[in-house]
Amino acid sequence: MVDIQTENKIKEPRITLVGAGPGDADLITLKGIKALKTADVVLYDALVNEELLEFAPENAHKVYVGKRSGDHSYSQDAINKLMIDYALNYGHVVRLKGGDPFVFGRGYEELDHAASYSIKTEVIPGISSSIAVPGLQGIPVTHRGKSESFWVVTGTTADGRVSGDLYEAARTNATIVVLMGLHKLAEITRIFKNEGKGKLPVAVIQSGSTENEKIGVGIIDTIVEIVEEQKIKAPALIVIGEVVSLHPLYQPIKEFYDIVAEE
Amino acid sequence: MVDIQTENKIKEPRITLVGAGPGDADLITLKGIKALKTADVVLYDALVNEELLEFAPENAHKVYVGKRSGDHSYSQDAINKLMIDYALNYGHVVRLKGGDPFVFGRGYEELDHAASYSIKTEVIPGISSSIAVPGLQGIPVTHRGKSESFWVVTGTTADGRVSGDLYEAARTNATIVVLMGLHKLAEITRIFKNEGKGKLPVAVIQSGSTENEKIGVGIIDTIVEIVEEQKIKAPALIVIGEVVSLHPLYQPIKEFYDIVAEE
Repeated sequence: MVDIQTENKIKEPRITLVGAGPGDADLITLKGIKALKTADVVLYDALVNEELLEFAPENAHKVYVGKRSGDHSYSQDAINKLMIDYALNYGHVVRLKGGDPFVFGRGYEELDHAASYSIKTEVIPGISSSIAVPGLQGIPVTHRGKSESFWVVTGTTADGRVSGDLYEAARTNATIVVLMGLHKLAEITRIFKNEGKGKLPVAVIQSGSTENEKIGVGIIDTIVEIVEEQKIKAPALIVIGEVVSLHPLYQPIKEFYDIVAEE
Repeated sequence: MVDIQTENKIKEPRITLVGAGPGDADLITLKGIKALKTADVVLYDALVNEELLEFAPENAHKVYVGKRSGDHSYSQDAINKLMIDYALNYGHVVRLKGGDPFVFGRGYEELDHAASYSIKTEVIPGISSSIAVPGLQGIPVTHRGKSESFWVVTGTTADGRVSGDLYEAARTNATIVVLMGLHKLAEITRIFKNEGKGKLPVAVIQSGSTENEKIGVGIIDTIVEIVEEQKIKAPALIVIGEVVSLHPLYQPIKEFYDIVAEE
């Protein structure tokens, strides 16, 4: 009797979740590159830099599974199913996700699904935009005398509302980073205004680490207007807190409010 | 008249802050490797994997400036001064720091000091242990239905106390990650007990991503004992929140408390 598995040389199915980083292709890790080099299939998301696909073997399947609005879109269930199918049929699937797989990336759901098929999995962390995108603009998420902590919140919960955690966050001294929150910016600023924090510094950064990067800097009271004026679009990240005052664009704002305070 | 600068071929001074990641040498970014390859001097910290120095040219100066207790120790002022001296005398200084330079890394202070000498600076983000170390253990800092946010707090503030932010954090539903907090674990658990959270899952992870990695999993009420039993030592990170219940070691704990609850 012929062993079909051996005949077809089907490789051991395995899935590696790889964080692709915030956008700049050079911000992937060496470990991520090594995983890509042994990929039989790469499933990649909308926010992943396509230059990274060049690290995969030429004959590897490269499949776009982005959930970009307007395009043909894959549900999470469809992605989970595809991942298993490819692993069983081709071997090593690299699931390449923007940022870090575990920061609002639904990475655990994908791992859990693979585990239910007893497929071996591994996770390779990525540079999360939550820390790196402010950092590349010279805004440290923590800084002695300004912030002893940072709190990263999603602007888009599963049911479309603003996370309840943001109401809590607005009461604290933490640096607040909101991912996927640009379309809720007005609502978010209202939460901070209700806590009497209209003068708190804010930055909104579009497409951090890429050639489309753009920044708007202001305070809670002015940031909605600034974002409109500068036509800042998604994907964008919001940083709220005293650390934003360290950005050079904050200097004229500070001087203006100092003069107003003196008058 | 002889131009001494030209004669000595002194390169343009510049400083690049590079995040080395949590420990595994493969978790540095491609961009970080490229910076190291053009380094004239590398100043590196205690928690940096020394294998990374091999990316720097053989004749580059590699200077250890760790603040490890017991060793000859460099103050932040001394590091700042050294960085400037090396940049002015040798050219490109790579300041290699564990994790990400802006997560409790005092990176901004170093950039600011360099800027005061008009030396060009650049920041290259690193993989922060705050996200990656739980992730490598299969604990996602965010997960639908369990956590819509994560809050990263230092266990060691400038003046040695537990950050006030932790008292706030204990009242919220965020996943809490405490860096450099192992020596304050008893005090930290008391804060959560005072909020009635004695049953909240906790993991303590030593030397994440390295061969010395170790994990203890429990709940607020038991974690101090578990860490003692398993002899978990610094450097270690504490993760507190429902997401920790996803770790395989939490299963028997869950079953035990389910039985207790039934009796």
